[in-house]
Amino acid sequence: MSVRAHDTVEVGYDELCGALAAKDLQPLWTQAAALMPERPTPATLPWLWKWRTVLPLAERAGQLIDITRGGDRRVLAFANPGLHGLPYTSSTLWGAFQYLGAHETAPAHRHSPAALRFVLEGEGVWTTVQGDACDMSAGDLILTPSGRWHDHTNGSDRPMVWFDGLDLPLVGALEAVFFEVYPDRMQPVRQPHNLSERLYGGRGTQPLATGPMPSHSPLLLYRWADTDAALSALLESGPGPMVSLRYANPTTGGGVLPTLGCEMHRIVPGEATPPHRKVGSSIYVVYGGHGHSVINGQRFDWERGDVFVTPSWSTVEHRANELADLFAVTDRPVLEALHLFREESPAEAQQVVATFEPR
Amino acid sequence: MSVRAHDTVEVGYDELCGALAAKDLQPLWTQAAALMPERPTPATLPWLWKWRTVLPLAERAGQLIDITRGGDRRVLAFANPGLHGLPYTSSTLWGAFQYLGAHETAPAHRHSPAALRFVLEGEGVWTTVQGDACDMSAGDLILTPSGRWHDHTNGSDRPMVWFDGLDLPLVGALEAVFFEVYPDRMQPVRQPHNLSERLYGGRGTQPLATGPMPSHSPLLLYRWADTDAALSALLESGPGPMVSLRYANPTTGGGVLPTLGCEMHRIVPGEATPPHRKVGSSIYVVYGGHGHSVINGQRFDWERGDVFVTPSWSTVEHRANELADLFAVTDRPVLEALHLFREESPAEAQQVVATFEPR
Amino acid sequence: MSVRAHDTVEVGYDELCGALAAKDLQPLWTQAAALMPERPTPATLPWLWKWRTVLPLAERAGQLIDITRGGDRRVLAFANPGLHGLPYTSSTLWGAFQYLGAHETAPAHRHSPAALRFVLEGEGVWTTVQGDACDMSAGDLILTPSGRWHDHTNGSDRPMVWFDGLDLPLVGALEAVFFEVYPDRMQPVRQPHNLSERLYGGRGTQPLATGPMPSHSPLLLYRWADTDAALSALLESGPGPMVSLRYANPTTGGGVLPTLGCEMHRIVPGEATPPHRKVGSSIYVVYGGHGHSVINGQRFDWERGDVFVTPSWSTVEHRANELADLFAVTDRPVLEALHLFREESPAEAQQVVATFEPR
Amino acid sequence: MSVRAHDTVEVGYDELCGALAAKDLQPLWTQAAALMPERPTPATLPWLWKWRTVLPLAERAGQLIDITRGGDRRVLAFANPGLHGLPYTSSTLWGAFQYLGAHETAPAHRHSPAALRFVLEGEGVWTTVQGDACDMSAGDLILTPSGRWHDHTNGSDRPMVWFDGLDLPLVGALEAVFFEVYPDRMQPVRQPHNLSERLYGGRGTQPLATGPMPSHSPLLLYRWADTDAALSALLESGPGPMVSLRYANPTTGGGVLPTLGCEMHRIVPGEATPPHRKVGSSIYVVYGGHGHSVINGQRFDWERGDVFVTPSWSTVEHRANELADLFAVTDRPVLEALHLFREESPAEAQQVVATFEPR
Repeated sequence: MSVRAHDTVEVGYDELCGALAAKDLQPLWTQAAALMPERPTPATLPWLWKWRTVLPLAERAGQLIDITRGGDRRVLAFANPGLHGLPYTSSTLWGAFQYLGAHETAPAHRHSPAALRFVLEGEGVWTTVQGDACDMSAGDLILTPSGRWHDHTNGSDRPMVWFDGLDLPLVGALEAVFFEVYPDRMQPVRQPHNLSERLYGGRGTQPLATGPMPSHSPLLLYRWADTDAALSALLESGPGPMVSLRYANPTTGGGVLPTLGCEMHRIVPGEATPPHRKVGSSIYVVYGGHGHSVINGQRFDWERGDVFVTPSWSTVEHRANELADLFAVTDRPVLEALHLFREESPAEAQQVVATFEPR
Repeated sequence: MSVRAHDTVEVGYDELCGALAAKDLQPLWTQAAALMPERPTPATLPWLWKWRTVLPLAERAGQLIDITRGGDRRVLAFANPGLHGLPYTSSTLWGAFQYLGAHETAPAHRHSPAALRFVLEGEGVWTTVQGDACDMSAGDLILTPSGRWHDHTNGSDRPMVWFDGLDLPLVGALEAVFFEVYPDRMQPVRQPHNLSERLYGGRGTQPLATGPMPSHSPLLLYRWADTDAALSALLESGPGPMVSLRYANPTTGGGVLPTLGCEMHRIVPGEATPPHRKVGSSIYVVYGGHGHSVINGQRFDWERGDVFVTPSWSTVEHRANELADLFAVTDRPVLEALHLFREESPAEAQQVVATFEPR
Repeated sequence: MSVRAHDTVEVGYDELCGALAAKDLQPLWTQAAALMPERPTPATLPWLWKWRTVLPLAERAGQLIDITRGGDRRVLAFANPGLHGLPYTSSTLWGAFQYLGAHETAPAHRHSPAALRFVLEGEGVWTTVQGDACDMSAGDLILTPSGRWHDHTNGSDRPMVWFDGLDLPLVGALEAVFFEVYPDRMQPVRQPHNLSERLYGGRGTQPLATGPMPSHSPLLLYRWADTDAALSALLESGPGPMVSLRYANPTTGGGVLPTLGCEMHRIVPGEATPPHRKVGSSIYVVYGGHGHSVINGQRFDWERGDVFVTPSWSTVEHRANELADLFAVTDRPVLEALHLFREESPAEAQQVVATFEPR
Repeated sequence: MSVRAHDTVEVGYDELCGALAAKDLQPLWTQAAALMPERPTPATLPWLWKWRTVLPLAERAGQLIDITRGGDRRVLAFANPGLHGLPYTSSTLWGAFQYLGAHETAPAHRHSPAALRFVLEGEGVWTTVQGDACDMSAGDLILTPSGRWHDHTNGSDRPMVWFDGLDLPLVGALEAVFFEVYPDRMQPVRQPHNLSERLYGGRGTQPLATGPMPSHSPLLLYRWADTDAALSALLESGPGPMVSLRYANPTTGGGVLPTLGCEMHRIVPGEATPPHRKVGSSIYVVYGGHGHSVINGQRFDWERGDVFVTPSWSTVEHRANELADLFAVTDRPVLEALHLFREESPAEAQQVVATFEPR
């Protein structure tokens, strides 16, 4: 083996490029600027889906599509038009609405991608996670962490539509997806419901003796009443048009899942929030109120039930017409774990140059 | 410098011992067994103080002793008779009752030892910690961490007696005590009260954006209603005569203070808890109920307001006559941080050989 | 907002699918199996590039391609044929050979993707990282962490070819790439060279006083002599056909970079290593010896200077004909940080079903 | 239970104090200033022991004292005269010289206090820790962590004297001492010697696959040659009269033991080091050179083999007459773990007011 500076014959540039291609090599110098742009150039587009558009389609799917072993879930994914036909909402996040008819069940399985459920309205449904039935009511957050058996049961006389958030695009890109079907259709349910809440739902307290802790929050259910109270308390103590909280693992203070962050933002009507950008994308679910957001200069009007996505390093500001609550799922824990997170507040707001019209 | 095996003259043993003493040296071989016993041989004795004994003395002190700059606090320390006259409850823990008369104040200071306050009864008093006035009501836990300015104000028409727990014996043994008086008698109070609770009192949620976190819990006030609810939830989900929780730093899931652990134990009347021993001592404050504990074979009967101490590696079991709540402050975080914690459940209960009679 | 189970008209399935597509929604039920396979189905193919093929092309590039401001680096990337034309070696890793002619320099820049350099042969070249000139000799590993200014200088009369490893595919997928050109062509060099080694190159010791530590190893240069000695020591104490070490951050014991793991494997000639698979991909650089690896049943013969890649969850075994040293760069720190790492040793070796012939 | 502000009879102050004493209570107001001084008031005195004094006594002990089961070790402890007869060097640290005659052995035991050995001169002795025989030569540091079986063997024709450092005063104060004798006189030795060094002695590298890690450094032997090289490298890169390193756990970058820190300081002859004080005490062992230290205004002249102690918060400066190496064992990890560590450099050096004359 030696690096010779001599004896190589004069070869033309085209011939070199051809030889490289033939040998599964690629020159960096032709594509450096595209591979290493000065700042993120996400494929993900800012986008918004309207509740009043998606809901009827979910209902139609409820009539037409059976939940069977195999298909497993009646889910409509928010597919970002920038992502070349992939059913992903951003390059790292999957967002969807799931529809479960009255007295239907969605069968048990588990997978390495982590998931969470944010309930938009209704009650009487529960998600069972490793035997623990977590009741789902409007405004609640339910976790189904990586590798945990889970199924859904609608014990009520009315269908329910909820928001699903997954890290599937990320775990897919990492080529780390595993999936397994439970031997029976549904797993047995331990009694009473909401066991994780009994153990880990204390306010500032924990069980004294516990075994080894999992990588995710052992608290699987976050109630809207608690979230609402925390937002109100924050709002009383702080100025500014928006207060923000994150859902936390009570045993570590860290995020609820290693790959997905959950946040809730309450916006006071009036002035817009200061423009802000960060590495990583977020899917927002409008839980209450109405208003609009400006993302990279494009205006998105939203109301309860709408879903929109902010791409990495996009400049974002929000403005509410009435008190608004925005639930967000993000890839921030991933970027923080890998020391790639960065955020800043550009000095001035973006000009609104276009208004988004959903298709 | 050389180690010579030759040329030392024959010297008698007594002469050697004398020479060692004269040169500030001590032989290990004469005291190895005492220095390194097979298991802990604490100087701390199991001991109990009765509410009905201590309270009148606290009241007398309230009449006789002025709170002035210098003395600063009207405090009666539980002095363990095994500790050779030191005003310490165990070798690592200080426990005391503090008495604050109607409309009295105890002036502001700060110190490297950490402290906590557990309220036995009453309301209308607050402890201000770095400007944050923490209201004190029966069953509440209030933290005054290492190095934080704190003072106490009784805004009510009645005196209050509460329990003080400190790590003073430990911090003293580490020769790490610093103390400083605040320039004014009292520090200014920010409004409204209980700011730490507004920010960090969420159930499973945290403020999204925070600065660097302190070494202690940023939540300074733990309300009895929350503790009570958590105990009830634990009791419903678990069998056994006792449920136990620990007070936690919501931003880390760890203990509330680096040097002091806080626990609450609820004991169901009936059978005794299994005998248990651990490295490190605990001071128990009986918040409710009555019953008895057997510590190294000695029986201690207790009722509301009583205080008792369990020495390191003592075998302990509790039995309640009616539903009982025991607050405990421990040195467990210290032993865990230094990897010296150890616990076990001896197979059989200790024989009761004596009953404690308080002096 | 309401979920209506009634009043939706009978609609055909095709029409529903069309409506979904029109509204940027996608049904999960048609693609669940592809999105959530039972185990990873990587696009990355097992592949190998021969030193004797790549080196002449690198030399030709050395003659034909100028290093200028803009192109910046004369680099040939190992482009995995499974990745649809992307210049990536696996779905998360970028591997390449970089060629720097005698007395050439490659100008200073910085970027959020992290990089490392593994030297195949030669000496007299240095990589300057934030002013610290790290000398590069055969077998050495040099780090250029995320966000650090770096440039390369060949101070010798001979060209050098070395291996570049980057996390670019991952950081690109996370839409977190930032890139910046240094104001001058080269940054100033502090004297003497190899400052990081003076401070953090101690064996079991560290400087007593340091400021806040970065997210990467402060040691930027790992010498072959040390690596070789550590491998020899491991080999003496352990049985088995292979010993493996990882390069570590001496201030944390963790990996050298948050996103890239570095390993060195020494294989004794004779029996094959037990078949093994893990989540995540690795690029191997053959530093010494010759032998072959079987990856998912396909045999790859290798010798000094060859480069090959193992996809996620592929079953791998190695066999050396003479004592062999394999350097590997992996995405393992990412998968571990996100709690997605998993590994196992399938009970039996794979059947060899095909032998790889490089193009 | 009630706090009554009325109906307490007028009682005199003396009677109150008597009642408190009778009931095992103590008033804080009489002793607050002593318990909570403005800054640490250590019982530990600055002190120094001369090699030329201690060595002959160690040799005499070697002639007179048998090492038997029970006594176990021939150890002379440096007993600080400030500590009221306790055989401790500071309030948290135990320092001693151990003497092991030619071809003698010191039998196997284990204990919860951790120990370390620093070798002053000689070779041919080894300490076996959990079966791993660690060779001891001049300048080497050997760890015998908490709970690990250990014994000592002198395989040479000459006696050896080495320094022992233990956390016994601390672990005793925590009432956490456990001790156990090994069933046989000596434990079996695995071959070859120095296994921990083969596995964890790599410079910047670690074994790839390991089981759960202990709370202490898995590297048990730190060689003088490595320490010396690290000091030389530091000295070349830095200005100032002193360079300082700490011995580290290579798998965490933290300290070698949870309760004891180890440091080595190299002082260049000439100017004095800047005055410095810190919470916590240190025992210094002069490994080479001669000079003096000023501790709280008192001057201590030292040369090779001397041992001296600096109390908590004492102001210390060192000055060498020839290049000097000071090994130090400290309680710093304890104070850091409990967030009680604090250090500062007072603006001006202390006046020398007295010169220490050892007894």
